[in-house]
Amino acid sequence: MAVEYYDFGPHKIHHSSVFHTTTLSFAFVNLRPAVPVKRVADLTDDENIDLWNIAKQLGRQLESYHKASSLTFCIQDGPQAGQSVPHVHIHILPRKNGDYENNDDIYEDINVKEKELNRALEVDIERRDSSIEEMAIEADEYKKFAF
Amino acid sequence: MAVEYYDFGPHKIHHSSVFHTTTLSFAFVNLRPAVPVKRVADLTDDENIDLWNIAKQLGRQLESYHKASSLTFCIQDGPQAGQSVPHVHIHILPRKNGDYENNDDIYEDINVKEKELNRALEVDIERRDSSIEEMAIEADEYKKFAF
Repeated sequence: MAVEYYDFGPHKIHHSSVFHTTTLSFAFVNLRPAVPVKRVADLTDDENIDLWNIAKQLGRQLESYHKASSLTFCIQDGPQAGQSVPHVHIHILPRKNGDYENNDDIYEDINVKEKELNRALEVDIERRDSSIEEMAIEADEYKKFAF
Repeated sequence: MAVEYYDFGPHKIHHSSVFHTTTLSFAFVNLRPAVPVKRVADLTDDENIDLWNIAKQLGRQLESYHKASSLTFCIQDGPQAGQSVPHVHIHILPRKNGDYENNDDIYEDINVKEKELNRALEVDIERRDSSIEEMAIEADEYKKFAF
């Protein structure tokens, strides 16, 4: 898919942030299906399968890249579960011994990141060059993964 | 699969707690693959697909049954992510407006449940009749779901 922007709910994701695509899904900082569906139950079987096939592969790569030893996979499926961006997406977080004082504190961070992502996406495209640049740097690293 | 107990890491799950099975996965209070693998990366593609196919269907049923409006899907994939039972499993939690004062407090509960599950499973089978009975009551409700 040679496009400049990918649809993500009501938002656009610049192609430089995207490090892996299949016909049905794309991955940048988070992993999401290419079609704009809000809830897991709205995914077709093919989309659901595609999403979790990549999540498995990507998790292994992220864990190795970040020299971690575990992973947290999390879907906030709907607003009452903390979902801010109305487009199914998976948070995948590499975990290490002692990365948080309390193991659960990571979920507070997921919610903070979710809100940051939503805010970043709501800013006019013209005004978020630096955010795009930061995401592109991370994406360039992840583009080296073998899928 | 007409067995009395299902393998779950080093533990056995009584069939009365199991409300749905496929060739590759089974669901009781949590959802897990039938084969005893520790990590998501150890799942075959078929196992991964099967697990998430059921998770999608089951999530929808649980949300409706509990009159909820969102879902939290979570995998603690490895001990550093809070995994207590060394067998891949998904926590699926129906979510409602105001179910927790802070949306994230649910994750503390996931960790508590994970530890309770581990403790319950570590107790001798003879001594956990009441736990089996409680789980069977919940499983009987969920057996009414259409898959």
